[in-house]
Amino acid sequence: MTEAIERALDEIKFGPDGLVPTIAQQHDTGEVLMLAWMNREAVRITLTEGRACYWSRSRQALWRKGETSGQVQRLHELRLDCDGDAVLLLVEQDGVACHTGRRSCFFQAWRNGGWSVIAVPQIPPEQLYPEPRD
Amino acid sequence: MTEAIERALDEIKFGPDGLVPTIAQQHDTGEVLMLAWMNREAVRITLTEGRACYWSRSRQALWRKGETSGQVQRLHELRLDCDGDAVLLLVEQDGVACHTGRRSCFFQAWRNGGWSVIAVPQIPPEQLYPEPRD
Repeated sequence: MTEAIERALDEIKFGPDGLVPTIAQQHDTGEVLMLAWMNREAVRITLTEGRACYWSRSRQALWRKGETSGQVQRLHELRLDCDGDAVLLLVEQDGVACHTGRRSCFFQAWRNGGWSVIAVPQIPPEQLYPEPRD
Repeated sequence: MTEAIERALDEIKFGPDGLVPTIAQQHDTGEVLMLAWMNREAVRITLTEGRACYWSRSRQALWRKGETSGQVQRLHELRLDCDGDAVLLLVEQDGVACHTGRRSCFFQAWRNGGWSVIAVPQIPPEQLYPEPRD
């Protein structure tokens, strides 16, 4: 990227761990799909490749969303909040966002003093992550 | 709260700092308003009082949204994600969410290699936070 773009990326305030919390939202329906984390390199990749790339805290690695599952998030717009410490991605979600096969990761709702599951899987999880073959 | 409710709250995985990232979304339009943080006590207060309460990292204090500005977020539903480490609040936002007087905090969009401001204040910020009086 050019120096001008790198300077613009300086507006994003990454935390002490080098990460910024990032919301993925379906661009046309407004559905909030997931919350994930990006480091500076993930932001660069998201902007240059036009698809969401996060930083996986569990795997400690860049995570191009959909690289294993095929459920890619195509970037419509990247937004930054007033304090520069949170990012909102407007995306076109292929299939489902959640590793459980549900469209959104936010499928547990607080009702009557406990958690209710309010969505069913649209794709069987085993179809998203097939066992490694010999 | 009852013990049953306290056990249900155990499903929320707060980070090492005791906080969970929380998205506030306008319940009917789907607009993402802001991202803030809650500790366990903030979640309790949000559920019992029916309005959003966060933990202010800058002030290191509980922050009942709107206590100074009057821009309260009335709770419609609290949701938890698949991993239990992110919260989504569906709210009815009184007025504006952002301290700049804009409806949403996410008013900076990445366009043509830099940031564009895509929303104007609906309320003058000085009206939200009047100077302390004698």
